[in-house]
Amino acid sequence: MSKREQSFWGWGYADKFPDDEGRKNLGSQVTAMLGFDEVELLEPPSLDDVELRPPRVEPPEALAAICSTDKRERTTHTYGKAYRDIVRGFRADFGEPPDFVAYPTSADDVRRVLDWASDEEVAVVPFGGGTSVVGGVETDVTNGASGSFRGVVSLDMRCMDRVLEVDKTSRAARIQAGATGPRLAEQLHEHDLSFRHYPQSYEFSTFGGWIATRAGGHYATRYTHIDDFIESVQMIAPAGEFQTRRLPASGAGPSPDALALGSEGALGVITEAWTRVHLRPRFRSKASVHFAEFEDAVRATREVVQSGLAPANLRLLDSREAMLNGVVFDGSNVLLVAFESPRVPTEPDLERALEICREFDGKLAGEPVHVDEHDKSPDSEAGGRWRSSFFEGPYLQNTMVSLGVIADTFETACTWDRFDTLHRRIITDVRDAMKRVCGAGFISCRFTHVYPDGPAPYYTFLAPAKVGSELEQWDEIKSAAAEAIADVGATITHHHAVGRTHKPWYKREVPELFQRGLQQVKESFDPKGVLNPGVLL
Amino acid sequence: MSKREQSFWGWGYADKFPDDEGRKNLGSQVTAMLGFDEVELLEPPSLDDVELRPPRVEPPEALAAICSTDKRERTTHTYGKAYRDIVRGFRADFGEPPDFVAYPTSADDVRRVLDWASDEEVAVVPFGGGTSVVGGVETDVTNGASGSFRGVVSLDMRCMDRVLEVDKTSRAARIQAGATGPRLAEQLHEHDLSFRHYPQSYEFSTFGGWIATRAGGHYATRYTHIDDFIESVQMIAPAGEFQTRRLPASGAGPSPDALALGSEGALGVITEAWTRVHLRPRFRSKASVHFAEFEDAVRATREVVQSGLAPANLRLLDSREAMLNGVVFDGSNVLLVAFESPRVPTEPDLERALEICREFDGKLAGEPVHVDEHDKSPDSEAGGRWRSSFFEGPYLQNTMVSLGVIADTFETACTWDRFDTLHRRIITDVRDAMKRVCGAGFISCRFTHVYPDGPAPYYTFLAPAKVGSELEQWDEIKSAAAEAIADVGATITHHHAVGRTHKPWYKREVPELFQRGLQQVKESFDPKGVLNPGVLL
Ligand SMILES: Cc1cc2nc3c(=O)[nH]c(=O)nc-3n(C[C@H](O)[C@H](O)[C@H](O)COP(=O)(O)OP(=O)(O)OC[C@H]3O[C@@H](n4cnc5c(N)ncnc54)[C@H](O)[C@@H]3O)c2cc1C
Ligand SMILES: Cc1cc2nc3c(=O)[nH]c(=O)nc-3n(C[C@H](O)[C@H](O)[C@H](O)COP(=O)(O)OP(=O)(O)OC[C@H]3O[C@@H](n4cnc5c(N)ncnc54)[C@H](O)[C@@H]3O)c2cc1C
Repeated sequence: MSKREQSFWGWGYADKFPDDEGRKNLGSQVTAMLGFDEVELLEPPSLDDVELRPPRVEPPEALAAICSTDKRERTTHTYGKAYRDIVRGFRADFGEPPDFVAYPTSADDVRRVLDWASDEEVAVVPFGGGTSVVGGVETDVTNGASGSFRGVVSLDMRCMDRVLEVDKTSRAARIQAGATGPRLAEQLHEHDLSFRHYPQSYEFSTFGGWIATRAGGHYATRYTHIDDFIESVQMIAPAGEFQTRRLPASGAGPSPDALALGSEGALGVITEAWTRVHLRPRFRSKASVHFAEFEDAVRATREVVQSGLAPANLRLLDSREAMLNGVVFDGSNVLLVAFESPRVPTEPDLERALEICREFDGKLAGEPVHVDEHDKSPDSEAGGRWRSSFFEGPYLQNTMVSLGVIADTFETACTWDRFDTLHRRIITDVRDAMKRVCGAGFISCRFTHVYPDGPAPYYTFLAPAKVGSELEQWDEIKSAAAEAIADVGATITHHHAVGRTHKPWYKREVPELFQRGLQQVKESFDPKGVLNPGVLL
Repeated sequence: MSKREQSFWGWGYADKFPDDEGRKNLGSQVTAMLGFDEVELLEPPSLDDVELRPPRVEPPEALAAICSTDKRERTTHTYGKAYRDIVRGFRADFGEPPDFVAYPTSADDVRRVLDWASDEEVAVVPFGGGTSVVGGVETDVTNGASGSFRGVVSLDMRCMDRVLEVDKTSRAARIQAGATGPRLAEQLHEHDLSFRHYPQSYEFSTFGGWIATRAGGHYATRYTHIDDFIESVQMIAPAGEFQTRRLPASGAGPSPDALALGSEGALGVITEAWTRVHLRPRFRSKASVHFAEFEDAVRATREVVQSGLAPANLRLLDSREAMLNGVVFDGSNVLLVAFESPRVPTEPDLERALEICREFDGKLAGEPVHVDEHDKSPDSEAGGRWRSSFFEGPYLQNTMVSLGVIADTFETACTWDRFDTLHRRIITDVRDAMKRVCGAGFISCRFTHVYPDGPAPYYTFLAPAKVGSELEQWDEIKSAAAEAIADVGATITHHHAVGRTHKPWYKREVPELFQRGLQQVKESFDPKGVLNPGVLL
């Protein structure tokens, strides 16, 4: 793990939190650009402000060496990184911390923790990078409806962070669950391989967390979810080991991997998996296309993805999203199109995609960029800006919270025939909710992933909070969004998982009979129900 | 359903069974080409030869209108279309027929049959097109280890064969489970749409059967299994309805659709589903490439699929398979490459693929063919021959059985790193087994599907049978193949399903904990265990 200190209350590295000058600047941008009233600079907390309940259970002798009751550790394992979490962190409110944190170094360690916890009626919350935005790693699980436990352990997987095996012929690797994006990348690069799965939380989230949540990467089409990469999974459940066979594909009964994918720590602890990896792309082609009308941009996006082409990127930003990301400020909607290949030139693909865009009145912004291998030609303007804002974006949420601004995102997916209705309904309902509870608000949209039969739209909203009741305000806005999604028949989450936050809508989404079946599976995998109680089920 | 009479004992239409002259011709080809001893013309059975046990249970009054105890119906619902089934059919051996056949016309009919069967302790075997090659629709289930039943009903879904809804914007359709390939195609063609999923059993197998077995279509890459097309599923279980939400993608918990896919009639009866469909391709490009060495052909295939290109077809035939299909006789291995798109020219894709083939000493056979829309330029020789033999092929098995030749296929998938070992092991072990039990034998290989991380090889074997003990002989050969597959760590089935035949190897393949979980699901979906006892679980 990196030595650089991470924020105990917010996203990312502590040193990235801007000084007062920087915060004031962002504050005036927000007031100017979004038309909010003056914002106030709130003081960030220090770890000394945090008061933690003493541990109710102690690590047993046999596990002591891999466990910690350190204050900072317990604090940083109390929440994930949702807006709600950052607000509570900012308030130094860590009312329900884990009693201790365990750091297994092997599948055997995991087994021993689960055995002990099952015997001792202690809940176990698997923790990857802790970047969950849906309450997935929250340790407030001991007093819930989900059972009564004597305590709760956060099981941090990040000491299991190695690439164990590489199969260059098949382009696959066996990787431990606790490897974060950069850890995994640096080990694969030694073999000239790369993973090509970059969720926006890439810097801190883990391979196992991606599998447990069915994370969405940066590819816009074809390889969207981590699901599309996984060959086999090893998962340790209280009732035993779950090891699937490593295969490129199979038709033997319902997919066992599909049970581990999306299990969110409720069925077992994922310890390692075989995954497809890629040669680093040699050829890349990309371009930005501007559209005056959002409808035309949507139509062009749909035509491209239905044409049979498979762009690595096909990211549509509506005019507000483009502005928010500093891409353009002239009211254009922007479509970023990119192709990549380790082997064949990608120019023909881009040309065919641009032809479609032109049919829908898309205007090429700048020249298309074609890169061959080590040629380090400068990135196209918009694409470059977009990418840096992609990884910097999350830090803004910390600052927004410190300015008393509600700043969050939500995402979904629906078939094309429903998209107009969904989009209108979301924009209207979320705006109304922001207006009602905050007096004002801003909402923008981008497509993170696109399928031949529908897009995965992703919304960002910003609203001035009444400090002290941010969570109630957020709750109303989030509910307005979730209700709109459910009513139109979209999904409550395309890639942010269910956790605790999305559960009411998840219950409405999947068949009751399936939930019953899953509950049965849970009981047979985890007879004492110690694994992540309250998540999913 | 078509009025043209289907064979009661073998594959397809009865009138396709060749006369004695035709059979003699095929016989001499077999003896000449494969070096088998003289073959004998056995007489095919007539329905009069068949003796059926009288029904042990009668359809209840309320269901009588949709049920039949007709002899032909009961006979044709006793088996699927595996080699074993055709041999038993040819012998007029239908010892364990269903007591009656039910033909539901709605989800409600299905529910009523399941209610009645659960109350009356009668087993229900869901039946699509009855093309299972793994004992999936066999009605010999009442005396098994799987429970004791008073009788067994075959539930034939083919009266539910309509396309119920079409969403042209999203390119999707809602289709009833009992639609066969041609039924579904003719209804979609009215909307200028097509399904682009052609298993070799296409003419007779059904949409619901494809979902229940995770069938593999003709696309070699990208859209290989029916899984890749399904948006949502409706399944009726004895415990209730299972209806998933129609979505292009979701990350909300483990996929509910993935539980229906591959459920093989053991968890519920699939009544309808939303599936992605396609505009009919406008652009098509294809070529045949010949390779002197199999290894080079394999390597080229791998490079193409790892390049990022997504050919609609990428079918590698080894030299024996090419000969068997009448494609070439000069010992070349043949790679058929094809691209298609509804929207963009496919020439650039083919060119890039052919460039890769040339690097591995592939020689273009004839000119590449590029088709735009209604241009009906003649098919390339090899491709055309291959396609017609694709749908005619299955009929050969009937004839082979009538000549006392064992003729069967099996298929698997493995990662590239294991393919050489697997292939060698299979060729050796299956040849040895054929030699041992039949004195001679022929085996050939093709790739039906190819993934960036591995191929799905498909083997055809032919051996002279000792008439009367074909099944025992077949059993030894099949076991040799399955053991080789299991030992190398490949899958027991890439797309032929598990059924009853593959169960011993399936048990070895998937995690024991998963099987336990699936058993729990089964018990909650089907408390009386009436659905397809003995399949999968
Ligand atoms: C700024 C930001 C950007 C984000 N961008 C994206 C994005 O682009 N795409 C996306 O999909 N998500 C995104 N997310 C959400 C989050 O990063 C993903 O859900 C990610 O997959 C979580 O990984 P993690 O390792 O942090 O898991 P955690 O947050 O630690 O855990 C998530 C869930 O998985 C379980 N879990 C974790 N590890 C294991 C394991 N080894 N075995 C069993 N269960 C386990 C936990 O119990 C929990 O329920 C973002 C979040 C933030 C804060
Ligand atoms: C000559 C030949 C060629 C073949 N080629 C291919 C191929 O290219 N690709 C491929 O994947 N397979 C192939 N197969 C195998 C077979 O066609 C597939 O398994 C097919 O999907 C079965 O469909 P069906 O409608 O005939 O189902 P059936 O054979 O009737 O049933 C198969 C299984 O599914 C269950 N089932 C059927 N319908 C339903 C339903 N509505 N609800 C619940 N359960 C149901 C049955 O109980 C059974 O377990 C081939 C078979 C033959 C004989």
